[in-house]
Amino acid sequence: MILYDCKLAPSPRRARMFAAEKGLDLETIEVDLGSGEQLSELFTQVNPRCTVPALKLDDGTVIAENIAIADYLESVHPEPPLIGSNPLQRALTLELNARIEMEGLVALAEILRNSSPGMKDRALPGPHNYAQIPELAARGRARFQNFFPMLEQQLGSQEFLLGDRFSMADITAFVVTEFATWVKESIPSHCPSVQAWHQRIKARPSAEA
Amino acid sequence: MILYDCKLAPSPRRARMFAAEKGLDLETIEVDLGSGEQLSELFTQVNPRCTVPALKLDDGTVIAENIAIADYLESVHPEPPLIGSNPLQRALTLELNARIEMEGLVALAEILRNSSPGMKDRALPGPHNYAQIPELAARGRARFQNFFPMLEQQLGSQEFLLGDRFSMADITAFVVTEFATWVKESIPSHCPSVQAWHQRIKARPSAEA
Repeated sequence: MILYDCKLAPSPRRARMFAAEKGLDLETIEVDLGSGEQLSELFTQVNPRCTVPALKLDDGTVIAENIAIADYLESVHPEPPLIGSNPLQRALTLELNARIEMEGLVALAEILRNSSPGMKDRALPGPHNYAQIPELAARGRARFQNFFPMLEQQLGSQEFLLGDRFSMADITAFVVTEFATWVKESIPSHCPSVQAWHQRIKARPSAEA
Repeated sequence: MILYDCKLAPSPRRARMFAAEKGLDLETIEVDLGSGEQLSELFTQVNPRCTVPALKLDDGTVIAENIAIADYLESVHPEPPLIGSNPLQRALTLELNARIEMEGLVALAEILRNSSPGMKDRALPGPHNYAQIPELAARGRARFQNFFPMLEQQLGSQEFLLGDRFSMADITAFVVTEFATWVKESIPSHCPSVQAWHQRIKARPSAEA
């Protein structure tokens, strides 16, 4: 397997961290999003959607969505379970993960992509250009204010977001928390459980993957 | 199990259709989105996020994301497989399903929620109000123009989106196709494979679920 990657970007970091937690040492190929390499002819032959992460399997099949990469790696390397080891655990992980994507990752992407001068006309990933919508950046910021309080409520006094088991939901939320600094958002002081959780996740070797 | 449902809305239709394809006859409770019942105290006790579908399990746990509901039903009722019966099938289904959600469902929701007079201040689902952004409706319409051509290319001469196996991706794409008519979008004549596929899916009993 080869992971088409970009060390700086949040989405491929999710896949790298998932693989590292599984104990997998994936071969990676860096795609320089900063210079637009994802739009190059060479990379569009790998993934016509021009996004990373993209996992190329040994038979040549390319999987280019985090949810699909995670499910595949969980299927072929079940231990340790990061989605879940029974139907209910899996459902709760997938639900919270989807929520963190929508309320955290998408909100941050709306801020960054609709306000950064370097992302002019790149308001959405993929092969097509779309103009920035400043109001969407403002809405992203408004709704992101609910994200850390949501995590705080979810965590309570638990070690991880889903209790005593580390899961894909922790990975996605950790990556969101680190990505937030790009648009000058950070864990507010009224979310102490999230602050402590963030330190715990940051101490895991996979956080350096 | 009880499915909190809304007969008219696209998202719960995905869950109903998935259950019907599994041969499950779920008890349903109708939540009237038209009158804002999803925001009522009664329903927020079921799902604080104020969305349907929400599947209440026999132990009282509520699962309120389509991806989580589908994975749960696939786990406890594996036949017929709608996500997949091996790791690669699962990954390909999850990837295409995610793509159809982003490029189809989200684009349509952007059009509808940011332009319909009846959805003023309801530009996003959930407990918080957000003002409509007319430019986002316009962007949703622009990018939806790529949706049916994407499906056409994916289908080619196949019976279903992933070849000869019916999958969750067909369900999501079918619901998107029907939802599109709400904002006056329909399968263009230059996508004949999608038109024929739509008729095939519409003829399945689950399309009436």
